[in-house]
Amino acid sequence: MSRSSVQLKTPKGTRDWVGDDLLLRENIFKTITDVFKRHGGTPLDTPVFELKEILSEKYGEDSRLMYDLEDQGGEICSLRFDLTVPFARWLAMNGNVTHIKRYQIAKVYRRDQPAIARGRLREFHQCDFDIAGVYDPMIPDAEILCVIAEVFEALGLDITIKVNHRRILDGVFSVAGVSDEKIRSISSAVDKLDKMPWDDVKKEMQEKGLSDEVADQVGGYVRCSGNIFDMLANLKSNEKLTANEEVSAGIADMSLLALYLRAFGIEQQVSFDCSLARGLDYYSGLIFEVITRSSGEPEPGSNKTSTNQVGSIAAGGRYDNLVGMYGKRPIPCVGISFGVDRIFTILQPTPEKGSKISSATSRNLDVYVMAIGGKEFDGFLLERMALIRRLWKAGIRAEYMAKVKPKSLQQFKASIGVPLAVIVGQDELAAGQVRLKVFRPEADEEKDSGQLISVDNLVEEVKKLL
Amino acid sequence: MSRSSVQLKTPKGTRDWVGDDLLLRENIFKTITDVFKRHGGTPLDTPVFELKEILSEKYGEDSRLMYDLEDQGGEICSLRFDLTVPFARWLAMNGNVTHIKRYQIAKVYRRDQPAIARGRLREFHQCDFDIAGVYDPMIPDAEILCVIAEVFEALGLDITIKVNHRRILDGVFSVAGVSDEKIRSISSAVDKLDKMPWDDVKKEMQEKGLSDEVADQVGGYVRCSGNIFDMLANLKSNEKLTANEEVSAGIADMSLLALYLRAFGIEQQVSFDCSLARGLDYYSGLIFEVITRSSGEPEPGSNKTSTNQVGSIAAGGRYDNLVGMYGKRPIPCVGISFGVDRIFTILQPTPEKGSKISSATSRNLDVYVMAIGGKEFDGFLLERMALIRRLWKAGIRAEYMAKVKPKSLQQFKASIGVPLAVIVGQDELAAGQVRLKVFRPEADEEKDSGQLISVDNLVEEVKKLL
Repeated sequence: MSRSSVQLKTPKGTRDWVGDDLLLRENIFKTITDVFKRHGGTPLDTPVFELKEILSEKYGEDSRLMYDLEDQGGEICSLRFDLTVPFARWLAMNGNVTHIKRYQIAKVYRRDQPAIARGRLREFHQCDFDIAGVYDPMIPDAEILCVIAEVFEALGLDITIKVNHRRILDGVFSVAGVSDEKIRSISSAVDKLDKMPWDDVKKEMQEKGLSDEVADQVGGYVRCSGNIFDMLANLKSNEKLTANEEVSAGIADMSLLALYLRAFGIEQQVSFDCSLARGLDYYSGLIFEVITRSSGEPEPGSNKTSTNQVGSIAAGGRYDNLVGMYGKRPIPCVGISFGVDRIFTILQPTPEKGSKISSATSRNLDVYVMAIGGKEFDGFLLERMALIRRLWKAGIRAEYMAKVKPKSLQQFKASIGVPLAVIVGQDELAAGQVRLKVFRPEADEEKDSGQLISVDNLVEEVKKLL
Repeated sequence: MSRSSVQLKTPKGTRDWVGDDLLLRENIFKTITDVFKRHGGTPLDTPVFELKEILSEKYGEDSRLMYDLEDQGGEICSLRFDLTVPFARWLAMNGNVTHIKRYQIAKVYRRDQPAIARGRLREFHQCDFDIAGVYDPMIPDAEILCVIAEVFEALGLDITIKVNHRRILDGVFSVAGVSDEKIRSISSAVDKLDKMPWDDVKKEMQEKGLSDEVADQVGGYVRCSGNIFDMLANLKSNEKLTANEEVSAGIADMSLLALYLRAFGIEQQVSFDCSLARGLDYYSGLIFEVITRSSGEPEPGSNKTSTNQVGSIAAGGRYDNLVGMYGKRPIPCVGISFGVDRIFTILQPTPEKGSKISSATSRNLDVYVMAIGGKEFDGFLLERMALIRRLWKAGIRAEYMAKVKPKSLQQFKASIGVPLAVIVGQDELAAGQVRLKVFRPEADEEKDSGQLISVDNLVEEVKKLL
């Protein structure tokens, strides 16, 4: 009998996908990209490997997990580790782009310990949506959390979005007595609190050079989580913390975010978790991680949670300094990365959930939501958010200007090419109404200020016109 | 001014894709996969790297273009070079699979000299459709050529499919006096005839050790091409060639193919080109390469053709021994690989051509075409081909059994889960009719032999029922 000496297998931590599994995964991709497109996303595709120096010093302790290509004469390259750094490199290279919502679905590579049954692989898909550009604080951040909520609504999964803020976390470390140079390393220990009991985390912090007292103080601060409004009230009542500049800047951001989340009607899905730290070095503001509701509840008789089975199924944050590291110009960014393989593992037993697919396929927008008023007007940001959320929820592709007080002209410019506008104004709002305007090239735009409709009929009226 | 020392670029021979370019490319993918699905294809996704030993000794002279991963402790891996070898590895690993039509769209990697403007990159997409399994000779081969014709019909491109046969080519080399151990290397020189003038190819053959006389004799044989029926007549009239076992086996295959291509009504798109050789080692039978009609015509005053601008836009062949090289069991295969980046380069100036998209999205089949008859019946293969071609052309997903004389029971088994069957029988055919049968789980299949319809109304009647 002839036998080959070749080992018939895929490399460690990788697998083949075939048939129905692959079709379910593609359904998941389509469901997610439909949401991205609804939010005005532009697709980007980058090479699977990058110059090694592009990837260097971006991932902290995790850098050792990078796959390097052999030096075969020429450039030194590594497989991409995530989609965020390649996006930042692309932004740095393309000076004409100042604002973009980009999405990318692609495989990334980490030489981590694989656990295939739990959806933890060395080659795995990420599915990223990022908003780049200067906007008023926390508005893009809130939209990202809204995208998260909509993606999991579309996938039929109950989730909790854990949020924290790097400046609050770093400030808390300072107040507890952690020295600046130890902050990132202690941060990475704290981040393990969802996987390890407190005693083990404390031990790791002590091994990293914290005294028993400082470690306990850190533990006291970070081991609390809950409703974002309650947590903010708590933090604000602690004068020792609020006296710290970093903490107080973080609290200001989170207070804005809490308002915006309420306007989107998604604050119940968000939990402010002071132990959330995220491993990657480049985050600078809001950070977040998504767990499924069922998997997030503690198992009886265990101080671990069954989250461990799958881990977080999406994660992201704000990274305002990453693009600037390439020496050209800083562009603040915030984004989310969906772990599609882990989502697949959850959806697999009940594949019918994967088929909740929207029919939207074109990336063009249907509606632009804008606010118009005189010198005194307040921009109606919260109102625009509530309105656009109705549209998004109904599967309608809509955008609005992410500014507290947007100028009328800017909004009209931004709406070019969009067939419909929803226009918010003081008097109309007071009567529970908005104007719905159809853009027609031949029309006299000055004279046509749109049809008055009740806010309650918004989705219905928009759908009539699409 | 702060300046980073980091080079802001993608690695040599790679590029980013963004926005409309990417959407056009996705349209191309969708158009192509719709055709694949119409032919009953199953999707497969394999890791971007494979164990190096899996890829070894499959690519002849091109092996030096492989990207290797650095040895970081553990397995030695290389980036995939094509999608064919990973498919063969998958077949060898999955012993339960004896017959499959699989498709895969993914990036492959070759450290070749890049020419980005002409769509020649080091990281590029391939889009593969392969039929694996033992069937009657040349039937799957003809279906692959039919898939090629349909893909380019859907993309709106006029093409020529150049075909040749490895056994004819190798036999011709023998007859001309090329020794066995030189055949693959001389074959690779001959393959350059579409890019280099004869004198340069001859020089290369002489450098590779052929005498002037032998080189000229090779040149005399391989420098002819044309209609497949004419070329076959020519070959058959050359007794020196037909006396060679290899040539004569190749002629038998090509004669069958010619018949099948006529049944599909696509023989006008096929040119039998004796100089076509294909570089890769693993081909064992029919080989083919697709060029666009316009790009394939010689430029005035030049002995080169403008094909050089883009090169072949799809290529493939039969590889009956590759799966067996992994030491388990041999599975004969034939397949096609579409060079999507080159197709993109051609479609780019007129993007509206990229939007001819079929609406089919599910991978299930609509119709199974079968033949039924008594002991004497001939299987109606050509008739089934002509019928199924009508269905495919109309965008209907259909399959049939790739056997000259299929058994009734086998065909009914193969049609399980397919809602409609077109049944071909002697008497009906004589009257220009077929039976159209709707499979209903609750029905008494014995009693319902289907409705008689005219062959001319086939597509119309099927569409009524879908």
